[in-house]
Amino acid sequence: MARTLDFFFFYGSIHAYLSVMRIAAVAAPRGIEIRWRPFNLRAILIEQNNTAFARNPVRLAYNWRDIARRAARLGVAFTGPAPYPADPDLLALRVGTVAAHEGWCDAYTRATFAAWFLDRRVAGLPENVEHVLAELKRPAADILARAAAPETADRLAVETDAARALGIFGSPTFAVGSEIFWGDDRLDDAIAFASS
Amino acid sequence: MARTLDFFFFYGSIHAYLSVMRIAAVAAPRGIEIRWRPFNLRAILIEQNNTAFARNPVRLAYNWRDIARRAARLGVAFTGPAPYPADPDLLALRVGTVAAHEGWCDAYTRATFAAWFLDRRVAGLPENVEHVLAELKRPAADILARAAAPETADRLAVETDAARALGIFGSPTFAVGSEIFWGDDRLDDAIAFASS
Repeated sequence: MARTLDFFFFYGSIHAYLSVMRIAAVAAPRGIEIRWRPFNLRAILIEQNNTAFARNPVRLAYNWRDIARRAARLGVAFTGPAPYPADPDLLALRVGTVAAHEGWCDAYTRATFAAWFLDRRVAGLPENVEHVLAELKRPAADILARAAAPETADRLAVETDAARALGIFGSPTFAVGSEIFWGDDRLDDAIAFASS
Repeated sequence: MARTLDFFFFYGSIHAYLSVMRIAAVAAPRGIEIRWRPFNLRAILIEQNNTAFARNPVRLAYNWRDIARRAARLGVAFTGPAPYPADPDLLALRVGTVAAHEGWCDAYTRATFAAWFLDRRVAGLPENVEHVLAELKRPAADILARAAAPETADRLAVETDAARALGIFGSPTFAVGSEIFWGDDRLDDAIAFASS
Protein backbone atom coordinates (compact mmCIF):
# COMPACT_ATOMS: atom_id res chain seq x y z
CA MET A 1 0.00 0.00 0.00
CA ALA A 2 1.31 3.43 -0.91
CA ARG A 3 2.21 5.57 2.06
CA THR A 4 0.58 8.95 2.02
CA LEU A 5 1.55 12.31 3.42
CA ASP A 6 -1.03 15.10 3.57
CA PHE A 7 0.49 18.42 2.64
CA PHE A 8 -1.62 21.24 4.09
CA PHE A 9 -0.63 24.68 2.88
CA PHE A 10 -1.90 28.18 2.18
CA TYR A 11 -1.12 30.35 -0.84
CA GLY A 12 -0.50 33.45 1.24
CA SER A 13 2.17 31.73 3.35
CA ILE A 14 5.78 32.60 2.64
CA HIS A 15 6.83 29.60 4.72
CA ALA A 16 5.16 27.23 2.29
CA TYR A 17 7.54 28.19 -0.51
CA LEU A 18 10.41 25.85 0.29
CA SER A 19 8.11 22.87 0.81
CA VAL A 20 6.13 23.53 -2.36
CA MET A 21 9.33 23.60 -4.38
CA ARG A 22 10.97 20.50 -2.88
CA ILE A 23 8.34 18.14 -1.48
CA ALA A 24 7.92 16.08 -4.65
CA ALA A 25 11.66 15.48 -4.93
CA VAL A 26 11.91 14.54 -1.26
CA ALA A 27 8.91 12.19 -1.24
CA ALA A 28 9.33 10.37 -4.54
CA PRO A 29 12.47 8.34 -3.68
CA ARG A 30 10.75 7.10 -0.52
CA GLY A 31 7.68 5.97 -2.42
CA ILE A 32 5.48 8.37 -0.51
CA GLU A 33 2.44 9.83 -2.17
CA ILE A 34 1.77 13.50 -1.48
CA ARG A 35 -1.79 14.75 -1.19
CA TRP A 36 -1.82 18.47 -1.90
CA ARG A 37 -4.42 19.95 0.44
CA PRO A 38 -4.80 23.73 0.23
CA PHE A 39 -6.86 25.12 3.12
CA ASN A 40 -7.95 28.47 4.48
CA LEU A 41 -5.28 29.17 7.04
CA ARG A 42 -6.39 32.78 7.29
CA ALA A 43 -9.72 31.73 8.78
CA ILE A 44 -7.96 29.61 11.41
CA LEU A 45 -5.46 32.35 12.30
CA ILE A 46 -8.31 34.80 12.81
CA GLU A 47 -10.22 32.31 14.97
CA GLN A 48 -7.09 31.86 17.10
CA ASN A 49 -6.29 35.58 17.30
CA ASN A 50 -2.95 34.64 15.76
CA THR A 51 -2.43 37.38 13.19
CA ALA A 52 -0.02 39.77 14.90
CA PHE A 53 3.04 38.14 13.28
CA ALA A 54 2.05 39.53 9.88
CA ARG A 55 2.40 43.04 11.28
CA ASN A 56 5.65 42.35 13.14
CA PRO A 57 8.54 43.69 11.05
CA VAL A 58 11.18 42.24 13.38
CA ARG A 59 9.83 38.74 13.05
CA LEU A 60 9.20 39.09 9.33
CA ALA A 61 12.80 40.21 8.76
CA TYR A 62 14.02 37.13 10.61
CA ASN A 63 11.70 34.85 8.67
CA TRP A 64 13.11 36.08 5.37
CA ARG A 65 16.66 35.58 6.62
CA ASP A 66 15.77 32.07 7.73
CA ILE A 67 14.18 31.25 4.37
CA ALA A 68 17.24 32.62 2.54
CA ARG A 69 19.64 30.47 4.58
CA ARG A 70 17.52 27.34 4.19
CA ALA A 71 16.97 27.89 0.47
CA ALA A 72 20.73 28.09 -0.03
CA ARG A 73 21.32 24.91 1.93
CA LEU A 74 18.48 23.01 0.27
CA GLY A 75 19.33 24.14 -3.23
CA VAL A 76 16.00 25.91 -3.77
CA ALA A 77 16.09 29.03 -5.93
CA PHE A 78 15.62 32.20 -3.90
CA THR A 79 16.15 35.78 -4.99
CA GLY A 80 15.21 37.73 -1.89
CA PRO A 81 12.01 38.57 -0.05
CA ALA A 82 8.88 38.23 -2.16
CA PRO A 83 6.08 40.80 -2.04
CA TYR A 84 3.95 40.24 1.04
CA PRO A 85 1.11 39.82 1.93
CA ALA A 86 -0.34 37.74 -0.90
CA ASP A 87 -3.59 36.13 -2.05
CA PRO A 88 -5.68 38.96 -0.59
CA ASP A 89 -9.02 37.63 -1.87
CA LEU A 90 -8.14 33.92 -1.65
CA LEU A 91 -8.33 33.56 -5.43
CA ALA A 92 -5.14 31.49 -5.63
CA LEU A 93 -6.64 29.29 -2.89
CA ARG A 94 -9.96 28.81 -4.64
CA VAL A 95 -8.26 27.89 -7.91
CA GLY A 96 -5.98 25.58 -5.91
CA THR A 97 -9.08 23.92 -4.50
CA VAL A 98 -10.31 23.24 -8.04
CA ALA A 99 -6.86 21.99 -9.01
CA ALA A 100 -6.68 19.65 -6.01
CA HIS A 101 -10.09 18.22 -6.91
CA GLU A 102 -8.98 17.64 -10.48
CA GLY A 103 -5.49 16.32 -9.77
CA TRP A 104 -3.25 19.13 -11.02
CA CYS A 105 -2.63 20.94 -7.76
CA ASP A 106 1.08 20.12 -7.63
CA ALA A 107 1.92 21.76 -10.95
CA TYR A 108 -0.41 24.70 -10.29
CA THR A 109 1.01 25.35 -6.84
CA ARG A 110 4.64 25.13 -7.90
CA ALA A 111 3.93 27.53 -10.77
CA THR A 112 2.10 29.92 -8.43
CA PHE A 113 4.89 30.04 -5.85
CA ALA A 114 7.64 30.23 -8.49
CA ALA A 115 5.83 33.16 -10.13
CA TRP A 116 5.42 34.84 -6.73
CA PHE A 117 8.94 34.32 -5.39
CA LEU A 118 11.03 34.39 -8.54
CA ASP A 119 9.06 36.67 -10.89
CA ARG A 120 7.47 38.83 -8.15
CA ARG A 121 3.95 38.05 -9.42
CA VAL A 122 2.01 38.17 -6.14
CA ALA A 123 0.02 34.97 -5.62
CA GLY A 124 -3.71 35.46 -6.06
CA LEU A 125 -3.88 38.68 -8.07
CA PRO A 126 -6.26 37.93 -10.96
CA GLU A 127 -3.74 38.68 -13.72
CA ASN A 128 -1.15 36.49 -12.02
CA VAL A 129 -3.56 33.58 -11.61
CA GLU A 130 -4.42 33.85 -15.30
CA HIS A 131 -0.74 33.96 -16.17
CA VAL A 132 -0.09 30.76 -14.25
CA LEU A 133 -3.09 29.02 -15.84
CA ALA A 134 -1.87 30.05 -19.31
CA GLU A 135 1.57 28.67 -18.49
CA LEU A 136 -0.09 25.36 -17.57
CA LYS A 137 -2.28 25.50 -20.70
CA ARG A 138 -5.43 25.38 -18.61
CA PRO A 139 -8.62 27.19 -19.73
CA ALA A 140 -8.61 30.23 -17.45
CA ALA A 141 -12.20 31.45 -17.93
CA ASP A 142 -13.64 28.02 -17.28
CA ILE A 143 -11.46 27.42 -14.21
CA LEU A 144 -12.14 30.85 -12.72
CA ALA A 145 -15.86 30.19 -13.09
CA ARG A 146 -15.50 26.89 -11.26
CA ALA A 147 -13.32 28.55 -8.59
CA ALA A 148 -16.22 30.91 -7.86
CA ALA A 149 -18.85 28.16 -7.74
CA PRO A 150 -20.50 27.07 -4.47
CA GLU A 151 -19.12 23.52 -4.71
CA THR A 152 -15.59 24.94 -4.58
CA ALA A 153 -16.45 26.95 -1.47
CA ASP A 154 -17.88 23.75 0.02
CA ARG A 155 -14.75 21.74 -0.82
CA LEU A 156 -12.54 24.43 0.65
CA ALA A 157 -14.62 24.48 3.85
CA VAL A 158 -14.27 20.70 4.14
CA GLU A 159 -10.49 20.90 3.81
CA THR A 160 -10.28 23.76 6.30
CA ASP A 161 -12.41 21.75 8.73
CA ALA A 162 -10.07 18.79 8.26
CA ALA A 163 -7.07 20.99 9.04
CA ARG A 164 -8.78 22.44 12.09
CA ALA A 165 -9.71 18.97 13.34
CA LEU A 166 -6.06 17.90 13.10
CA GLY A 167 -4.99 20.87 15.23
CA ILE A 168 -3.30 22.68 12.36
CA PHE A 169 -2.48 26.35 12.99
CA GLY A 170 0.17 27.14 10.39
CA SER A 171 1.45 26.53 6.87
CA PRO A 172 3.03 24.31 5.75
CA THR A 173 1.86 21.44 7.92
CA PHE A 174 2.44 17.79 7.05
CA ALA A 175 0.07 15.19 8.42
CA VAL A 176 0.55 11.44 8.55
CA GLY A 177 -2.73 10.19 9.90
CA SER A 178 -3.27 12.33 12.97
CA GLU A 179 0.42 13.12 13.55
CA ILE A 180 1.19 16.65 12.42
CA PHE A 181 4.48 18.38 11.65
CA TRP A 182 4.57 22.16 11.26
CA GLY A 183 7.08 23.96 9.08
CA ASP A 184 9.36 23.14 6.18
CA ASP A 185 12.03 22.30 8.74
CA ARG A 186 9.89 19.34 9.84
CA LEU A 187 9.41 17.88 6.34
CA ASP A 188 12.17 15.33 6.77
CA ASP A 189 10.70 14.25 10.12
CA ALA A 190 7.28 13.85 8.52
CA ILE A 191 8.72 11.82 5.64
CA ALA A 192 10.59 9.60 8.10
CA PHE A 193 7.41 9.13 10.14
CA ALA A 194 5.43 8.25 7.01
CA SER A 195 8.13 5.72 6.07
CA SER A 196 8.24 3.99 9.43
CA MET B 1 40.84 32.75 19.30
CA ALA B 2 37.91 30.97 20.90
CA ARG B 3 34.73 31.14 18.87
CA THR B 4 31.77 32.37 20.79
CA LEU B 5 28.05 31.76 20.53
CA ASP B 6 25.64 33.98 22.45
CA PHE B 7 22.80 31.96 23.92
CA PHE B 8 19.80 34.24 24.57
CA PHE B 9 17.02 32.59 26.51
CA PHE B 10 14.16 33.21 28.92
CA TYR B 11 13.25 31.17 32.00
CA GLY B 12 9.53 31.13 31.19
CA SER B 13 10.12 29.62 27.75
CA ILE B 14 9.32 25.96 27.29
CA HIS B 15 11.20 26.03 24.01
CA ALA B 16 14.46 26.83 25.80
CA TYR B 17 14.45 23.50 27.61
CA LEU B 18 16.07 21.33 24.94
CA SER B 19 18.79 23.90 24.26
CA VAL B 20 19.54 24.46 27.93
CA MET B 21 20.01 20.74 28.43
CA ARG B 22 22.15 20.04 25.38
CA ILE B 23 24.01 23.17 24.30
CA ALA B 24 27.15 22.53 26.35
CA ALA B 25 27.51 19.01 24.93
CA VAL B 26 26.96 20.26 21.38
CA ALA B 27 29.35 23.20 21.59
CA ALA B 28 32.25 21.71 23.54
CA PRO B 29 33.55 19.30 20.86
CA ARG B 30 33.64 22.18 18.37
CA GLY B 31 35.63 24.37 20.72
CA ILE B 32 32.86 26.95 20.85
CA GLU B 33 32.42 29.00 23.97
CA ILE B 34 28.80 29.60 25.04
CA ARG B 35 27.82 32.89 26.60
CA TRP B 36 24.65 32.36 28.65
CA ARG B 37 22.59 35.53 28.22
CA PRO B 38 19.23 35.50 29.99
CA PHE B 39 17.00 38.39 28.85
CA ASN B 40 13.48 39.65 29.40
CA LEU B 41 11.65 38.10 26.48
CA ARG B 42 8.31 38.93 28.06
CA ALA B 43 8.98 42.65 27.67
CA ILE B 44 9.80 42.20 23.98
CA LEU B 45 6.75 40.01 23.32
CA ILE B 46 4.51 42.64 24.90
CA GLU B 47 6.14 45.42 22.86
CA GLN B 48 5.51 43.38 19.70
CA ASN B 49 1.94 42.43 20.63
CA ASN B 50 3.12 38.83 20.31
CA THR B 51 1.54 37.16 23.32
CA ALA B 52 -1.50 35.39 21.86
CA PHE B 53 0.39 32.09 21.45
CA ALA B 54 0.47 31.60 25.22
CA ARG B 55 -3.34 31.53 25.25
CA ASN B 56 -3.68 29.30 22.18
CA PRO B 57 -4.33 25.74 23.36
CA VAL B 58 -4.08 24.31 19.83
CA ARG B 59 -0.62 25.70 19.30
CA LEU B 60 0.52 24.84 22.82
CA ALA B 61 -0.57 21.22 22.35
CA TYR B 62 1.46 21.04 19.16
CA ASN B 63 4.49 22.62 20.81
CA TRP B 64 4.50 19.97 23.53
CA ARG B 65 4.21 17.22 20.94
CA ASP B 66 7.09 18.73 19.00
CA ILE B 67 9.25 18.99 22.13
CA ALA B 68 8.45 15.37 23.03
CA ARG B 69 9.45 14.10 19.59
CA ARG B 70 12.65 16.14 19.53
CA ALA B 71 13.61 15.20 23.10
CA ALA B 72 13.32 11.52 22.15
CA ARG B 73 15.44 11.98 19.07
CA LEU B 74 18.07 14.11 20.82
CA GLY B 75 18.30 11.90 23.88
CA VAL B 76 17.13 14.63 26.27
CA ALA B 77 15.08 13.48 29.25
CA PHE B 78 11.41 14.44 28.92
CA THR B 79 8.49 13.25 31.01
CA GLY B 80 5.56 15.13 29.48
CA PRO B 81 4.35 18.71 29.47
CA ALA B 82 5.71 20.83 32.30
CA PRO B 83 3.51 23.24 34.25
CA TYR B 84 3.00 26.43 32.26
CA PRO B 85 3.28 29.42 32.41
CA ALA B 86 6.40 29.85 34.55
CA ASP B 87 8.57 32.52 36.14
CA PRO B 88 5.56 34.78 36.79
CA ASP B 89 7.53 37.48 38.62
CA LEU B 90 10.80 37.06 36.70
CA LEU B 91 12.59 35.83 39.82
CA ALA B 92 14.32 32.98 37.99
CA LEU B 93 15.43 35.55 35.42
CA ARG B 94 16.80 38.01 37.97
CA VAL B 95 18.75 35.26 39.74
CA GLY B 96 19.95 34.09 36.32
CA THR B 97 21.19 37.62 35.66
CA VAL B 98 23.25 37.46 38.86
CA ALA B 99 24.50 34.01 37.90
CA ALA B 100 25.51 35.18 34.42
CA HIS B 101 27.43 38.09 35.91
CA GLU B 102 29.25 35.74 38.30
CA GLY B 103 29.91 32.92 35.85
CA TRP B 104 27.63 30.16 37.14
CA CYS B 105 24.66 30.68 34.83
CA ASP B 106 25.09 27.37 33.00
CA ALA B 107 24.78 25.20 36.11
CA TYR B 108 21.99 27.36 37.56
CA THR B 109 19.97 27.32 34.35
CA ARG B 110 20.29 23.59 33.78
CA ALA B 111 19.22 22.96 37.38
CA THR B 112 16.27 25.35 37.01
CA PHE B 113 14.98 23.75 33.83
CA ALA B 114 15.59 20.20 35.07
CA ALA B 115 13.65 21.00 38.24
CA TRP B 116 10.82 22.54 36.19
CA PHE B 117 10.54 19.87 33.53
CA LEU B 118 11.51 16.71 35.41
CA ASP B 119 10.45 17.47 39.00
CA ARG B 120 7.55 19.79 38.10
CA ARG B 121 9.01 22.63 40.22
CA VAL B 122 7.81 25.65 38.25
CA ALA B 123 10.72 27.93 37.35
CA GLY B 124 10.71 31.17 39.31
CA LEU B 125 8.52 30.30 42.29
CA PRO B 126 10.51 31.44 45.36
CA GLU B 127 10.66 28.03 47.01
CA ASN B 128 11.84 26.47 43.76
CA VAL B 129 14.55 29.06 43.22
CA GLU B 130 15.77 28.43 46.77
CA HIS B 131 15.71 24.69 46.14
CA VAL B 132 17.88 25.10 43.06
CA LEU B 133 20.33 27.38 44.88
CA ALA B 134 20.59 24.86 47.73
CA GLU B 135 21.30 22.12 45.21
CA LEU B 136 24.12 24.25 43.81
CA LYS B 137 25.36 25.05 47.34
CA ARG B 138 24.90 28.77 46.72
CA PRO B 139 23.91 31.14 49.56
CA ALA B 140 20.24 31.79 48.82
CA ALA B 141 19.57 34.81 51.05
CA ASP B 142 22.60 36.65 49.73
CA ILE B 143 21.83 35.86 46.09
CA LEU B 144 18.16 36.78 46.38
CA ALA B 145 19.18 40.13 47.85
CA ARG B 146 21.51 40.75 44.92
CA ALA B 147 18.80 39.63 42.48
CA ALA B 148 16.55 42.38 43.87
CA ALA B 149 19.25 45.07 43.71
CA PRO B 150 19.16 47.92 41.18
CA GLU B 151 22.41 46.84 39.50
CA THR B 152 20.78 43.52 38.59
CA ALA B 153 17.82 45.33 37.06
CA ASP B 154 20.30 47.46 35.13
CA ARG B 155 22.23 44.43 33.89
CA LEU B 156 19.01 42.74 32.81
CA ALA B 157 17.93 45.86 30.94
CA VAL B 158 21.27 45.96 29.13
CA GLU B 159 20.91 42.32 28.04
CA THR B 160 17.30 42.85 26.95
CA ASP B 161 18.41 45.90 24.95
CA ALA B 162 21.13 43.79 23.33
CA ALA B 163 18.57 41.15 22.37
CA ARG B 164 16.21 43.79 21.00
CA ALA B 165 19.01 45.39 18.98
CA LEU B 166 19.80 42.02 17.39
CA GLY B 167 16.17 41.60 16.30
CA ILE B 168 15.47 38.81 18.79
CA PHE B 169 11.78 38.01 19.33
CA GLY B 170 11.83 34.51 20.83
CA SER B 171 13.63 32.05 23.08
CA PRO B 172 15.99 30.35 22.58
CA THR B 173 17.90 32.46 20.09
CA PHE B 174 21.55 31.89 19.22
CA ALA B 175 23.62 34.81 17.98
CA VAL B 176 26.98 34.70 16.27
CA GLY B 177 27.87 38.34 15.89
CA SER B 178 24.77 39.84 14.32
CA GLU B 179 23.54 36.59 12.72
CA ILE B 180 20.65 35.17 14.73
CA PHE B 181 19.10 31.72 14.79
CA TRP B 182 15.75 31.17 16.52
CA GLY B 183 14.72 27.90 18.09
CA ASP B 184 16.42 24.76 19.36
CA ASP B 185 16.00 23.35 15.87
CA ARG B 186 18.48 25.97 14.63
CA LEU B 187 21.18 25.20 17.21
CA ASP B 188 23.16 23.02 14.83
CA ASP B 189 22.99 25.73 12.15
CA ALA B 190 24.24 28.30 14.64
CA ILE B 191 27.09 26.04 15.75
CA ALA B 192 28.06 25.43 12.12
CA PHE B 193 27.96 29.16 11.44
CA ALA B 194 30.12 29.86 14.49
CA SER B 195 32.59 27.21 13.31
CA SER B 196 32.91 28.53 9.77
